[in-house]
Amino acid sequence: MSSEKSIQEIYKSYVATGSVKKFMNDIKAQGIQENDPRLSQIAELTKEREQKEKKVDYENFARRSTPCCGLMKKFSERQFVIPNFEKFTKTIEDLYWRIKPNTTGKNAAYIPQLASIPDYWGISICTVDGQRFQIGDTGNGFSIQSCCKPLNYAIACEYLTSDVVHKFIGQEPSGRMFNEMVLDHNNQPHNPMINSGAIATASLIYTLIDGDQRRSMADKFDMVKTWMERAGGNERFGFNNSIYLSEKEVADRNFALGYFMKENKVFPEKTNMLESLDFYFQLCSIETSAETFSVVASTFANGGVCPLTDEKIFSVDTCRDVLSLMHSCGLYDYSGQFSFNVGLPAKSGVSGVIMLVIPNLAGIVCYSPKLDQHGNSVRGIQFCEELLKTYAIHPYDNLRHTLARRSIYEDK
Amino acid sequence: MSSEKSIQEIYKSYVATGSVKKFMNDIKAQGIQENDPRLSQIAELTKEREQKEKKVDYENFARRSTPCCGLMKKFSERQFVIPNFEKFTKTIEDLYWRIKPNTTGKNAAYIPQLASIPDYWGISICTVDGQRFQIGDTGNGFSIQSCCKPLNYAIACEYLTSDVVHKFIGQEPSGRMFNEMVLDHNNQPHNPMINSGAIATASLIYTLIDGDQRRSMADKFDMVKTWMERAGGNERFGFNNSIYLSEKEVADRNFALGYFMKENKVFPEKTNMLESLDFYFQLCSIETSAETFSVVASTFANGGVCPLTDEKIFSVDTCRDVLSLMHSCGLYDYSGQFSFNVGLPAKSGVSGVIMLVIPNLAGIVCYSPKLDQHGNSVRGIQFCEELLKTYAIHPYDNLRHTLARRSIYEDK
Amino acid sequence: MSSEKSIQEIYKSYVATGSVKKFMNDIKAQGIQENDPRLSQIAELTKEREQKEKKVDYENFARRSTPCCGLMKKFSERQFVIPNFEKFTKTIEDLYWRIKPNTTGKNAAYIPQLASIPDYWGISICTVDGQRFQIGDTGNGFSIQSCCKPLNYAIACEYLTSDVVHKFIGQEPSGRMFNEMVLDHNNQPHNPMINSGAIATASLIYTLIDGDQRRSMADKFDMVKTWMERAGGNERFGFNNSIYLSEKEVADRNFALGYFMKENKVFPEKTNMLESLDFYFQLCSIETSAETFSVVASTFANGGVCPLTDEKIFSVDTCRDVLSLMHSCGLYDYSGQFSFNVGLPAKSGVSGVIMLVIPNLAGIVCYSPKLDQHGNSVRGIQFCEELLKTYAIHPYDNLRHTLARRSIYEDK
Amino acid sequence: MSSEKSIQEIYKSYVATGSVKKFMNDIKAQGIQENDPRLSQIAELTKEREQKEKKVDYENFARRSTPCCGLMKKFSERQFVIPNFEKFTKTIEDLYWRIKPNTTGKNAAYIPQLASIPDYWGISICTVDGQRFQIGDTGNGFSIQSCCKPLNYAIACEYLTSDVVHKFIGQEPSGRMFNEMVLDHNNQPHNPMINSGAIATASLIYTLIDGDQRRSMADKFDMVKTWMERAGGNERFGFNNSIYLSEKEVADRNFALGYFMKENKVFPEKTNMLESLDFYFQLCSIETSAETFSVVASTFANGGVCPLTDEKIFSVDTCRDVLSLMHSCGLYDYSGQFSFNVGLPAKSGVSGVIMLVIPNLAGIVCYSPKLDQHGNSVRGIQFCEELLKTYAIHPYDNLRHTLARRSIYEDK
Repeated sequence: MSSEKSIQEIYKSYVATGSVKKFMNDIKAQGIQENDPRLSQIAELTKEREQKEKKVDYENFARRSTPCCGLMKKFSERQFVIPNFEKFTKTIEDLYWRIKPNTTGKNAAYIPQLASIPDYWGISICTVDGQRFQIGDTGNGFSIQSCCKPLNYAIACEYLTSDVVHKFIGQEPSGRMFNEMVLDHNNQPHNPMINSGAIATASLIYTLIDGDQRRSMADKFDMVKTWMERAGGNERFGFNNSIYLSEKEVADRNFALGYFMKENKVFPEKTNMLESLDFYFQLCSIETSAETFSVVASTFANGGVCPLTDEKIFSVDTCRDVLSLMHSCGLYDYSGQFSFNVGLPAKSGVSGVIMLVIPNLAGIVCYSPKLDQHGNSVRGIQFCEELLKTYAIHPYDNLRHTLARRSIYEDK
Repeated sequence: MSSEKSIQEIYKSYVATGSVKKFMNDIKAQGIQENDPRLSQIAELTKEREQKEKKVDYENFARRSTPCCGLMKKFSERQFVIPNFEKFTKTIEDLYWRIKPNTTGKNAAYIPQLASIPDYWGISICTVDGQRFQIGDTGNGFSIQSCCKPLNYAIACEYLTSDVVHKFIGQEPSGRMFNEMVLDHNNQPHNPMINSGAIATASLIYTLIDGDQRRSMADKFDMVKTWMERAGGNERFGFNNSIYLSEKEVADRNFALGYFMKENKVFPEKTNMLESLDFYFQLCSIETSAETFSVVASTFANGGVCPLTDEKIFSVDTCRDVLSLMHSCGLYDYSGQFSFNVGLPAKSGVSGVIMLVIPNLAGIVCYSPKLDQHGNSVRGIQFCEELLKTYAIHPYDNLRHTLARRSIYEDK
Repeated sequence: MSSEKSIQEIYKSYVATGSVKKFMNDIKAQGIQENDPRLSQIAELTKEREQKEKKVDYENFARRSTPCCGLMKKFSERQFVIPNFEKFTKTIEDLYWRIKPNTTGKNAAYIPQLASIPDYWGISICTVDGQRFQIGDTGNGFSIQSCCKPLNYAIACEYLTSDVVHKFIGQEPSGRMFNEMVLDHNNQPHNPMINSGAIATASLIYTLIDGDQRRSMADKFDMVKTWMERAGGNERFGFNNSIYLSEKEVADRNFALGYFMKENKVFPEKTNMLESLDFYFQLCSIETSAETFSVVASTFANGGVCPLTDEKIFSVDTCRDVLSLMHSCGLYDYSGQFSFNVGLPAKSGVSGVIMLVIPNLAGIVCYSPKLDQHGNSVRGIQFCEELLKTYAIHPYDNLRHTLARRSIYEDK
Repeated sequence: MSSEKSIQEIYKSYVATGSVKKFMNDIKAQGIQENDPRLSQIAELTKEREQKEKKVDYENFARRSTPCCGLMKKFSERQFVIPNFEKFTKTIEDLYWRIKPNTTGKNAAYIPQLASIPDYWGISICTVDGQRFQIGDTGNGFSIQSCCKPLNYAIACEYLTSDVVHKFIGQEPSGRMFNEMVLDHNNQPHNPMINSGAIATASLIYTLIDGDQRRSMADKFDMVKTWMERAGGNERFGFNNSIYLSEKEVADRNFALGYFMKENKVFPEKTNMLESLDFYFQLCSIETSAETFSVVASTFANGGVCPLTDEKIFSVDTCRDVLSLMHSCGLYDYSGQFSFNVGLPAKSGVSGVIMLVIPNLAGIVCYSPKLDQHGNSVRGIQFCEELLKTYAIHPYDNLRHTLARRSIYEDK
């Protein structure tokens, strides 16, 4: 069926009989939110209609459907990646409530701004078709902390190619704490997901290969934030200045790391190490919500195309490399166990955020500030592991001869 | 189409018109070998016919087709997992010849038995449908060395469950050399793919959880070898006694490791450490060929069912765990880079073997004794990495919005 | 005054007027014991006299004084190294009683034989002139444990020269625990006072430089024990077989160390590592008492000549090297602090022994099985540190312009 | 003989017969230099006499001899610590010329200011009686570098007591490189002679125990420099600003160390770490010559009293502690071997200086910029080791029963 035909059908079923609103409701039941940018023109129609009680003619409807023709087609053919979205969200809700009473763990305590955050708990999901679901504290802002690492890496790769980035940083799990003062056999950071690698990555963003800076830090910060916003469907990201200032104040280990790396010539030649470090602290202090950040995660799940805007943000090669590294090194010292139990790319931050990517299906962001001994959100990890028990989404879960388990795709 | 119908069709097309042999040739073109155990009765038919020039009646043919009805169905419907096997093998052949001139690297030198092996080079493939292909030195025997690690782990898991095994051994990449004298934060080996973890695994095989031994070492060795043979389609495995004796003689590091582990109470309580170590050396000295070992690899690819005998060897849970660990820790210090570049489960041994598992597709074994600095076969690694450039089989290679790349499944 | 004149004088003062016994009493007051081998002939005289009431003529007395002419001279000239022995021993007694109530610390617990030893406390002193003093449990036997290290090293140096020994072992404090699995920058044990160095030393005793063994272990053991006995004034040393057997049983770390060293080619070429290890365990299990062992210590203090027998046991070069290493590495991880506080060569063993050498003055052995966190006898360390506060015997304590402190030499 | 009588005698022998100059020449032959502050008034006399040809009366001479009455006494009694100074200096000269051709080693290269220093070679000696001797490039200025460590430690101890200083810093050799990023079991620097310990020491100078600063850095620097000058007989010390600036620029490792220490709470509470680090760099950049610095060394040899001014600079306790630490940790990674071979306190700096202290005898400073692999001056180390072979000055070299070796005290 062509998308034109889909639009005709939708017009016939809904609009002709007088109810754009009903269409909006029905598509909402599939997880497509009213404020979805693809639907903005249709949404306007609803409002206009409400005011004017005027009939919408097909031409008008079709014109306004152009930005969302793909969405229309999927809707009319019932081909969203999660066909039974209601049942799926019910499952997530159950998990949400089941996990909520778990109040073990402790907030990160090294700065007061993190120590004092209340016991939030939220889950936000965005599928590769832009179906969205939120439950709990998904609107509350948090600093992304280590979750900036995969994004910085992605942006550096887009600008310099992955090959150039990996001239400075390895790809190996370190087997050590994320902040340990250690380099690999080549005297390079083990990978971009540990602190040393992330500081090196920060030094590479919008930088010539010889470390020459063509842009001011203000410019670079703006561009990274804009990039994140584009990956997040153009929703706004903020900056938590008090977190930034506090982080910087207590960052003795990172300063030690920076000088240690400088001594070992980890950085490109002309790099200003202290500026790179400062830039890294700034990137960690970018603020978002679970709701918005799940769109970023879904962009990775969707091969680099933002599901809400259909904009190509990252190349598929970049996506593959980011996901590979999140898979093997995303959860600090728990990465191996997580990759064993869950087998999916994920990244955590000490603010309590965990971003989980289910390739070709969805991005999920959990937010709950209490951390386990590894520095990962207690509830976030529990959610990921229970989700895996619920659905057969471990990459080696669908081997031949596996007795049928519940598939997320066929949830009926 | 039912498998009965397939058999009828094949009878009609081939046997009725007088040519079981032609059928055998045609199915051989799909990679099913004459000596495939599933075809043994049909193969007998060919021989009888040759001797007696007697017509085969349908009933006879159908009866003899019972053990291979699944195979018959796939053949008649042309639904082998690699539909165009000829084209596929041509690609592999090209890779074989392209890689052959690469004579860099050095044999393992710590024992003369490994140092003196000629510069062999062979590739053997077995798909999850039992389609097989060999090129080069795939019949030459080699000791499996570290390739016993995933098998030992699988057998220990089958006997004790993965949960019990992981009470003694972790799941984290170590970030260190395979033989380093180091344990994880829980004073346990990092994972079953490094030496310490493999020695611990050996101590768990056919052992009660308290380390109590119910079987003699002879018994245990026999049972492990039999298990490997079953995973290898009942082809014979050998034992290289001179390798075993030499290994033992120079195994200072492993003895040091064993005592270090004993001191740290890594083993179950009643374990005889020296016996476990000896058992581990024996398991490393088991001998096979690339040809046979690729069947073992395909058993893992096939969810634990041997493609040639349809026998269930390992549970899917065991398969998932083995593949997860091969994915993250299979290639020594190169594991992270391999998982980044190739993203598939693999395991190498210092004899020059690399076993690659493409889940739900095939097992591939490369054999070439010259090793790189990490201890992995130079040609084996090159083959894996070039294969990945040829076909889109990296797990994050088929993200949505990826521009079409050559699929191994649709090679036409 | 010639020694002949001294003998004449003594004859005149004591024997002529009828009392060899009085002489024996007077010299005993100077710390020279009745059973001193130098006095054995004179002592016989006493007994004979008692029986026969016969007058001793000068010739007889002079003849019997030959072996102790040096002693006679010092006695008559009142030139013993500690002139006021009584006052000195009073000071030691005071320290003994002051320290006795300190029952902190814990017996070594890794073998029951050490764990169950009662709370002994003894101090034994032997000056370089053979003046002796004991208080407390100085007759109780103990295994010498790590106190065999300086002796083994001395014996190896005598046989091979220090230069050859240090081709295999360094001279640097390790800054680590005594049993840590670590070698120095040359892949050698840091020094002969840590376990790795002591095992290497054991492999060198009575061994050709290429590791060739010309003697059986039984022979070697006997010769070492004999050597110790000679250094101890020919008093008997024993062997604690149950300690030896237990040590060996729990020696996982030492076995690990041995294999680790073998792998790193620490030993001479033909060395049988397991035999060297076993030999080391045997040497640790040699048994002595504080009383006897203080004579060994005084032999080192006396430049290698046993004060009781005037036999040359070790060359002065060997003595210098042994004392240098005891100075810098004798007390495990506390060596630096001890050298800072006390500045004298000492060696401890986990049985609770501490041997302190005050060069050119005396050897002191403390015995008390309760150990501190570093593995040194709590009371032994306390004694050494309080002794230093009592007498100015720190090597940098007698710098010019030091306000007069109490000298051990002038204690009047 | 009273010192008055000595002065009378000298007057009689020299002045009365008309020749103060002859006296000056004769005392100069004993190593007492014309510009010795103790002789300044007598030296004036010479000059006056030259101008005025006037006879010196006894009263005048005696008055002017007051500040040097001790010196006069030793001279007239021929009791200088090195009685035959001429023979001694001849021996040193021989060593100087023998070692001069050794041009192995390499200048420190991390800053151009050190890399480009010519191949200087000088030896300067000052005995505890102020007898002085120089040969070679002993007037050339050099930055003291690590040789500031014992002085800073001494000054900190004088101000805070050794007990307080060692609440922050240990006394144990580290067994590692001087700049390694490692702390001891108490999370403190191993000792004040490695970089971390020296930085911590710098933070303690003229600082309250809680890290509160009562003085500006300018003040503190001035006071330390003045202290050094007093220890150096009031000869002037300089500051090499270009060395300071360069050091600071390349000090990545020290910055890393500083932040690492800050993170581990090594410093007193209110310490400004960056300022302490800067202060440390400044102290390393203080400039002196071998000639002057040998007086500092002799002050330590003399129990803290400057031989040239008889001023008490350091308490004997401070001296003892400084010498103990120089003994065990003064020559980086070579300390153990040096303490084994030489057994005397010494401290080296990467500018090529080695300060050797022979307690109660002399301070010796060698200067030669080419360094060995450990960072110690090649010629300086060779000098120390050959000196030890020439004279029996190893602390365990004068054990009883040592065959007579050449004594530095009786060199006739």
